[in-house]
Amino acid sequence: MWVIKRSGEREEYDENKVKQALLRSGASEAEADEILEKLRGRVYNGITTHEIYQHVRRMLDRKRKIRYSLKDAIFSLGPEGHFFESLVARLFQETGYAVRVRECIRGRCIPHEIDILAERGSERYLVECKFHNSAGTRCGIQTALYTYARFLDISEVMPFASPWLVTNTKFSGDVITYARCIGMRLLGWRFPEDGGLESLLESHKLYPITILAIKKDVRNSLLTNGIITIKEIFTKKDRIYDILPELKANEVLYAARAVAECL
Amino acid sequence: MWVIKRSGEREEYDENKVKQALLRSGASEAEADEILEKLRGRVYNGITTHEIYQHVRRMLDRKRKIRYSLKDAIFSLGPEGHFFESLVARLFQETGYAVRVRECIRGRCIPHEIDILAERGSERYLVECKFHNSAGTRCGIQTALYTYARFLDISEVMPFASPWLVTNTKFSGDVITYARCIGMRLLGWRFPEDGGLESLLESHKLYPITILAIKKDVRNSLLTNGIITIKEIFTKKDRIYDILPELKANEVLYAARAVAECL
Repeated sequence: MWVIKRSGEREEYDENKVKQALLRSGASEAEADEILEKLRGRVYNGITTHEIYQHVRRMLDRKRKIRYSLKDAIFSLGPEGHFFESLVARLFQETGYAVRVRECIRGRCIPHEIDILAERGSERYLVECKFHNSAGTRCGIQTALYTYARFLDISEVMPFASPWLVTNTKFSGDVITYARCIGMRLLGWRFPEDGGLESLLESHKLYPITILAIKKDVRNSLLTNGIITIKEIFTKKDRIYDILPELKANEVLYAARAVAECL
Repeated sequence: MWVIKRSGEREEYDENKVKQALLRSGASEAEADEILEKLRGRVYNGITTHEIYQHVRRMLDRKRKIRYSLKDAIFSLGPEGHFFESLVARLFQETGYAVRVRECIRGRCIPHEIDILAERGSERYLVECKFHNSAGTRCGIQTALYTYARFLDISEVMPFASPWLVTNTKFSGDVITYARCIGMRLLGWRFPEDGGLESLLESHKLYPITILAIKKDVRNSLLTNGIITIKEIFTKKDRIYDILPELKANEVLYAARAVAECL
């Protein structure tokens, strides 16, 4: 049985992969097996991984649905990368950093637009975010190389502890080797294993608003007004009513509360 | 009157731009004015720059047609960049360098695939080629940054005089500033002004075979067999008859001779 991946490649259907994703979203062995059993009747030759994803999503309870949907919700922040940058900035804030987003800093040779500048006490980090629109794309070596060259150019004017590279997908093997060698920190999907992007977002309950079942135009109004996470829907409640008509603002708050109860 | 650029943008039709291109291809003032006069009846609101290009091309004599077509012929080496890399390698060879193309070299941290490694006496250069598929795309700062970081990583194992960055389009302003600052050499379309890629290719009579009016499959057979320039059609004549059926090989040689006579 073949499945078509997001990248367009096809591969043998692997129940174990689906099971791993289910277990990661918090389902028990028994629940996972039950879902796999139901799934068997719906999988057909040439099904897309996205279709499988949607079937599974429908069969999960609300709490698990949220964790299971996180990856997709982050893709929905695209197609450009700036909302992803804002999400990553919120994560740094949540862990005690003062952040500045998309600031222009003059290096020795040229000025650079820095995705995130994160400071905590005497630590100062330069964070480059690389957003990908599809799960198949790994963050490649050119990105790591230009991040480092940018870091070098700026470091001669303003000292930094080290460069960070944050992505919503995985890193290629040589990025990992290179980063270790030159002292660059990496954060990506399930990388590092003991605290990848998905696990940090989960532990800080930082879910992007794209996880809510709200209309696209409402979602875009919120994002462009700097409401990136569900938390902000509550902390910037007045702002929501400024941005949206009362009825829509109520709906957003209702949807956000329903999700927040599950977290 | 509006024209649509390759990038999809539209701009006011500017006769002077067409005239400059004509003069660059070697037409006299009088010839250029005559062509512009004829062109006036054919230009309409919303015409594409490519259509204008084709009209003009038809009105030029053979010698000028070749120079005028060089940019397009280089785009036709795509969509991937490796035939462009081979063309640039031929240019370095022609100026006395020993070249190695797409070689893997171990740096301090990771192995790198180097587009061109060019050596002449004690000079050794690392050449990164950046091929673009459309004239509107400028070679941007990320490319210059990763080229430099790659150069740094390799330099710690194998010393190089300096990195080169070669592209078939223009460079953005910050690439030029950055390159000057860190000592990177740049070669691009009409850059540097006193000897850009187009003028070096012309002065060494290094025209890519894509300038010939030959069928796509013939062209691809030649390119994949390492026949990149018209010169090579003559120097590797036997090879042409190995690659192609006699009739097609004859046609290629005939077309190449017709062009070579004009150079």
